[in-house]
Amino acid sequence: MSQSASISAEVGRFLDHEPVGVVSTLRPDGTPRQSVTYFIRDGGRIFISTESKRAKARDVERSGWASLCVVGHAPPFPSVTVEGPARILRSGIADATARIFVKMAGGDPPELTDETLAGMDRVILEISVDRVYGASYLNQ
Amino acid sequence: MSQSASISAEVGRFLDHEPVGVVSTLRPDGTPRQSVTYFIRDGGRIFISTESKRAKARDVERSGWASLCVVGHAPPFPSVTVEGPARILRSGIADATARIFVKMAGGDPPELTDETLAGMDRVILEISVDRVYGASYLNQ
Repeated sequence: MSQSASISAEVGRFLDHEPVGVVSTLRPDGTPRQSVTYFIRDGGRIFISTESKRAKARDVERSGWASLCVVGHAPPFPSVTVEGPARILRSGIADATARIFVKMAGGDPPELTDETLAGMDRVILEISVDRVYGASYLNQ
Repeated sequence: MSQSASISAEVGRFLDHEPVGVVSTLRPDGTPRQSVTYFIRDGGRIFISTESKRAKARDVERSGWASLCVVGHAPPFPSVTVEGPARILRSGIADATARIFVKMAGGDPPELTDETLAGMDRVILEISVDRVYGASYLNQ
Protein backbone atom coordinates (compact mmCIF):
# COMPACT_ATOMS: atom_id res chain seq x y z
CA MET A 1 0.00 0.00 0.00
CA SER A 2 1.38 3.34 -0.97
CA GLN A 3 1.52 6.18 1.50
CA SER A 4 -0.04 9.39 0.31
CA ALA A 5 2.23 12.43 0.40
CA SER A 6 0.92 15.58 1.93
CA ILE A 7 0.95 18.38 -0.63
CA SER A 8 1.81 21.61 1.18
CA ALA A 9 -0.38 24.67 0.75
CA GLU A 10 2.39 26.36 -1.22
CA VAL A 11 2.81 23.44 -3.63
CA GLY A 12 -0.97 23.11 -3.93
CA ARG A 13 -1.39 26.79 -4.86
CA PHE A 14 1.30 26.46 -7.51
CA LEU A 15 -0.23 23.30 -9.01
CA ASP A 16 -3.69 24.86 -9.03
CA HIS A 17 -2.40 27.98 -10.79
CA GLU A 18 -0.41 26.33 -13.58
CA PRO A 19 -2.37 24.92 -16.52
CA VAL A 20 0.10 22.40 -17.94
CA GLY A 21 2.88 20.07 -16.89
CA VAL A 22 5.18 17.47 -18.40
CA VAL A 23 4.07 13.91 -17.68
CA SER A 24 6.60 11.10 -17.74
CA THR A 25 5.58 7.47 -18.13
CA LEU A 26 7.58 4.35 -18.92
CA ARG A 27 7.66 2.67 -22.31
CA PRO A 28 7.68 -1.12 -22.57
CA ASP A 29 11.48 -0.93 -22.98
CA GLY A 30 11.80 1.02 -19.71
CA THR A 31 12.79 4.38 -21.22
CA PRO A 32 10.91 7.49 -20.09
CA ARG A 33 8.27 8.96 -22.39
CA GLN A 34 7.45 12.66 -21.85
CA SER A 35 4.71 14.94 -23.14
CA VAL A 36 3.01 18.20 -22.22
CA THR A 37 -0.46 17.91 -20.75
CA TYR A 38 -3.17 19.93 -19.07
CA PHE A 39 -4.05 18.70 -15.59
CA ILE A 40 -6.03 19.48 -12.46
CA ARG A 41 -5.39 18.63 -8.84
CA ASP A 42 -7.95 17.19 -6.44
CA GLY A 43 -6.33 16.98 -3.00
CA GLY A 44 -3.49 14.50 -3.33
CA ARG A 45 -4.49 13.34 -6.80
CA ILE A 46 -3.61 14.66 -10.24
CA PHE A 47 -6.09 14.17 -13.10
CA ILE A 48 -5.09 14.26 -16.77
CA SER A 49 -7.61 13.84 -19.61
CA THR A 50 -6.33 11.64 -22.42
CA GLU A 51 -7.47 8.93 -24.85
CA SER A 52 -7.18 5.26 -24.00
CA LYS A 53 -5.27 4.59 -27.21
CA ARG A 54 -2.59 7.17 -26.42
CA ALA A 55 0.86 5.88 -25.53
CA LYS A 56 0.89 7.46 -22.07
CA ALA A 57 -2.41 5.76 -21.19
CA ARG A 58 -1.09 2.40 -22.31
CA ASP A 59 2.14 3.00 -20.38
CA VAL A 60 0.15 3.67 -17.21
CA GLU A 61 -2.08 0.61 -17.67
CA ARG A 62 1.04 -1.53 -17.97
CA SER A 63 3.37 0.10 -15.41
CA GLY A 64 0.98 1.67 -12.88
CA TRP A 65 3.19 4.71 -12.41
CA ALA A 66 3.50 8.30 -13.61
CA SER A 67 5.35 11.50 -12.77
CA LEU A 68 4.38 15.13 -13.48
CA CYS A 69 6.81 18.06 -13.52
CA VAL A 70 5.21 21.51 -13.49
CA VAL A 71 7.23 24.59 -14.43
CA GLY A 72 6.26 28.27 -14.19
CA HIS A 73 6.36 30.51 -17.22
CA ALA A 74 9.08 33.03 -16.44
CA PRO A 75 12.46 33.24 -14.72
CA PRO A 76 13.39 31.90 -12.21
CA PHE A 77 11.06 29.15 -13.49
CA PRO A 78 9.43 27.88 -10.29
CA SER A 79 8.85 24.14 -10.43
CA VAL A 80 7.83 21.01 -8.59
CA THR A 81 7.58 17.32 -9.47
CA VAL A 82 4.90 14.99 -8.12
CA GLU A 83 4.72 11.26 -8.72
CA GLY A 84 3.11 8.07 -7.59
CA PRO A 85 0.94 5.11 -8.49
CA ALA A 86 -1.19 5.84 -11.54
CA ARG A 87 -4.21 4.27 -13.22
CA ILE A 88 -6.67 4.84 -16.03
CA LEU A 89 -10.24 5.69 -14.99
CA ARG A 90 -13.26 5.22 -17.28
CA SER A 91 -16.15 5.83 -14.89
CA GLY A 92 -17.00 8.69 -12.59
CA ILE A 93 -14.79 10.93 -14.72
CA ALA A 94 -17.27 13.52 -16.00
CA ASP A 95 -16.63 16.19 -13.36
CA ALA A 96 -12.84 15.96 -13.50
CA THR A 97 -12.88 16.01 -17.30
CA ALA A 98 -15.15 19.06 -17.32
CA ARG A 99 -12.76 20.88 -14.95
CA ILE A 100 -9.82 20.06 -17.24
CA PHE A 101 -11.72 21.26 -20.34
CA VAL A 102 -12.41 24.57 -18.58
CA LYS A 103 -8.69 24.90 -17.83
CA MET A 104 -7.97 24.23 -21.52
CA ALA A 105 -10.65 26.36 -23.13
CA GLY A 106 -12.13 28.64 -20.47
CA GLY A 107 -15.86 29.31 -20.34
CA ASP A 108 -18.47 27.28 -18.52
CA PRO A 109 -17.98 23.59 -17.70
CA PRO A 110 -19.36 21.44 -20.53
CA GLU A 111 -22.16 18.95 -19.83
CA LEU A 112 -20.44 15.56 -19.85
CA THR A 113 -21.31 12.00 -18.88
CA ASP A 114 -19.21 8.86 -18.70
CA GLU A 115 -21.11 7.62 -21.77
CA THR A 116 -20.32 10.74 -23.82
CA LEU A 117 -16.67 10.48 -22.82
CA ALA A 118 -16.54 6.76 -23.67
CA GLY A 119 -17.79 7.68 -27.15
CA MET A 120 -14.87 10.12 -27.46
CA ASP A 121 -12.41 7.52 -26.08
CA ARG A 122 -11.66 10.01 -23.28
CA VAL A 123 -10.27 8.58 -20.06
CA ILE A 124 -8.67 10.06 -16.96
CA LEU A 125 -5.07 9.32 -16.06
CA GLU A 126 -4.99 9.57 -12.27
CA ILE A 127 -1.78 9.97 -10.28
CA SER A 128 -2.06 9.35 -6.53
CA VAL A 129 0.77 11.56 -5.36
CA ASP A 130 3.05 9.77 -2.94
CA ARG A 131 6.14 11.89 -3.46
CA VAL A 132 6.68 15.63 -3.98
CA TYR A 133 10.20 16.82 -4.75
CA GLY A 134 12.27 19.48 -6.45
CA ALA A 135 10.04 22.33 -5.27
CA SER A 136 11.87 25.56 -6.02
CA TYR A 137 11.10 29.28 -6.33
CA LEU A 138 7.42 28.71 -5.57
CA ASN A 139 7.22 31.97 -3.64
CA GLN A 140 8.27 34.19 -6.54
CA MET B 1 25.55 2.32 -32.48
CA SER B 2 22.78 4.83 -32.25
CA GLN B 3 21.50 6.66 -35.29
CA SER B 4 21.39 10.42 -34.96
CA ALA B 5 18.01 12.02 -35.59
CA SER B 6 17.85 15.00 -37.84
CA ILE B 7 16.42 17.97 -35.96
CA SER B 8 14.28 19.98 -38.37
CA ALA B 9 14.85 23.71 -38.77
CA GLU B 10 11.50 24.36 -37.07
CA VAL B 11 12.33 22.19 -34.05
CA GLY B 12 15.83 23.67 -33.91
CA ARG B 13 14.51 27.23 -33.82
CA PHE B 14 12.11 26.33 -31.01
CA LEU B 15 14.81 24.61 -28.94
CA ASP B 16 17.19 27.52 -29.46
CA HIS B 17 14.54 30.01 -28.35
CA GLU B 18 13.36 28.30 -25.17
CA PRO B 19 15.57 28.61 -22.10
CA VAL B 20 14.44 25.61 -20.03
CA GLY B 21 13.06 22.11 -20.39
CA VAL B 22 12.12 19.13 -18.25
CA VAL B 23 14.76 16.42 -18.21
CA SER B 24 13.76 12.87 -17.36
CA THR B 25 16.28 10.27 -16.28
CA LEU B 26 15.90 6.85 -14.71
CA ARG B 27 16.39 6.09 -11.04
CA PRO B 28 18.08 2.87 -9.96
CA ASP B 29 14.60 1.39 -9.38
CA GLY B 30 13.57 2.21 -12.98
CA THR B 31 11.10 5.00 -12.17
CA PRO B 32 11.42 8.30 -14.03
CA ARG B 33 13.02 11.27 -12.27
CA GLN B 34 12.10 14.73 -13.62
CA SER B 35 13.45 18.23 -13.08
CA VAL B 36 13.52 21.59 -14.78
CA THR B 37 16.82 22.60 -16.33
CA TYR B 38 18.43 25.23 -18.56
CA PHE B 39 19.95 23.78 -21.74
CA ILE B 40 21.53 24.68 -25.06
CA ARG B 41 21.53 22.84 -28.37
CA ASP B 42 24.59 22.24 -30.54
CA GLY B 43 23.43 20.58 -33.75
CA GLY B 44 21.98 17.22 -32.73
CA ARG B 45 23.21 17.41 -29.15
CA ILE B 46 21.65 18.91 -26.03
CA PHE B 47 23.92 20.24 -23.29
CA ILE B 48 22.81 20.67 -19.68
CA SER B 49 25.09 22.05 -16.95
CA THR B 50 24.80 20.20 -13.66
CA GLU B 51 26.91 18.90 -10.77
CA SER B 52 28.38 15.41 -10.78
CA LYS B 53 26.80 14.67 -7.39
CA ARG B 54 23.29 15.50 -8.61
CA ALA B 55 20.84 12.65 -8.99
CA LYS B 56 20.28 13.23 -12.71
CA ALA B 57 24.03 13.06 -13.39
CA ARG B 58 24.30 9.81 -11.48
CA ASP B 59 21.26 8.43 -13.32
CA VAL B 60 22.89 9.22 -16.66
CA GLU B 61 26.22 7.68 -15.69
CA ARG B 62 24.40 4.50 -14.74
CA SER B 63 21.72 4.29 -17.47
CA GLY B 64 23.27 6.19 -20.41
CA TRP B 65 19.94 7.72 -21.38
CA ALA B 66 17.96 10.95 -20.98
CA SER B 67 14.90 12.72 -22.35
CA LEU B 68 14.16 16.47 -22.55
CA CYS B 69 10.65 17.90 -23.03
CA VAL B 70 10.53 21.60 -23.90
CA VAL B 71 7.28 23.56 -23.54
CA GLY B 72 6.51 27.13 -24.65
CA HIS B 73 5.25 29.69 -22.17
CA ALA B 74 1.72 30.45 -23.35
CA PRO B 75 -1.29 28.73 -24.89
CA PRO B 76 -1.39 26.63 -26.99
CA PHE B 77 1.84 25.54 -25.27
CA PRO B 78 4.06 24.49 -28.18
CA SER B 79 6.25 21.55 -27.26
CA VAL B 80 8.67 18.91 -28.41
CA THR B 81 10.51 16.02 -26.76
CA VAL B 82 14.01 14.91 -27.72
CA GLU B 83 15.83 11.92 -26.32
CA GLY B 84 18.75 9.61 -26.81
CA PRO B 85 21.96 8.23 -25.40
CA ALA B 86 23.39 10.48 -22.73
CA ARG B 87 26.69 10.83 -20.91
CA ILE B 88 28.50 13.06 -18.42
CA LEU B 89 31.34 15.19 -19.81
CA ARG B 90 34.13 16.64 -17.64
CA SER B 91 36.57 17.95 -20.25
CA GLY B 92 36.13 20.29 -23.17
CA ILE B 93 33.06 21.71 -21.45
CA ALA B 94 34.04 25.36 -20.90
CA ASP B 95 32.40 26.80 -24.03
CA ALA B 96 29.11 24.92 -23.63
CA THR B 97 28.94 25.81 -19.94
CA ALA B 98 29.58 29.48 -20.70
CA ARG B 99 26.76 29.47 -23.28
CA ILE B 100 24.39 27.93 -20.71
CA PHE B 101 25.38 30.49 -18.04
CA VAL B 102 24.59 33.29 -20.53
CA LYS B 103 21.17 31.72 -21.15
CA MET B 104 20.65 31.63 -17.35
CA ALA B 105 21.97 35.02 -16.37
CA GLY B 106 22.41 37.10 -19.54
CA GLY B 107 25.44 39.33 -20.03
CA ASP B 108 28.78 38.34 -21.49
CA PRO B 109 30.06 34.77 -21.46
CA PRO B 110 32.08 34.13 -18.29
CA GLU B 111 35.73 33.08 -18.58
CA LEU B 112 35.74 29.39 -17.74
CA THR B 113 38.18 26.50 -17.96
CA ASP B 114 37.73 22.78 -17.35
CA GLU B 115 39.82 23.24 -14.19
CA THR B 116 37.60 26.01 -12.84
CA LEU B 117 34.53 23.92 -13.56
CA ALA B 118 36.05 20.83 -11.91
CA GLY B 119 36.56 22.95 -8.78
CA MET B 120 32.86 23.82 -8.88
CA ASP B 121 31.90 20.16 -9.52
CA ARG B 122 30.22 21.37 -12.76
CA VAL B 123 29.82 18.79 -15.51
CA ILE B 124 27.88 18.69 -18.77
CA LEU B 125 25.05 16.21 -19.26
CA GLU B 126 25.07 15.58 -23.03
CA ILE B 127 22.13 14.03 -24.87
CA SER B 128 22.85 12.80 -28.41
CA VAL B 129 19.39 13.19 -29.88
CA ASP B 130 18.30 10.08 -31.73
CA ARG B 131 14.55 10.66 -31.49
CA VAL B 132 12.36 13.75 -31.80
CA TYR B 133 8.64 13.35 -31.10
CA GLY B 134 5.52 15.10 -29.94
CA ALA B 135 6.30 18.32 -31.83
CA SER B 136 3.17 20.44 -31.72
CA TYR B 137 2.16 24.08 -32.26
CA LEU B 138 5.76 25.07 -33.06
CA ASN B 139 4.56 27.56 -35.69
CA GLN B 140 2.46 29.63 -33.31
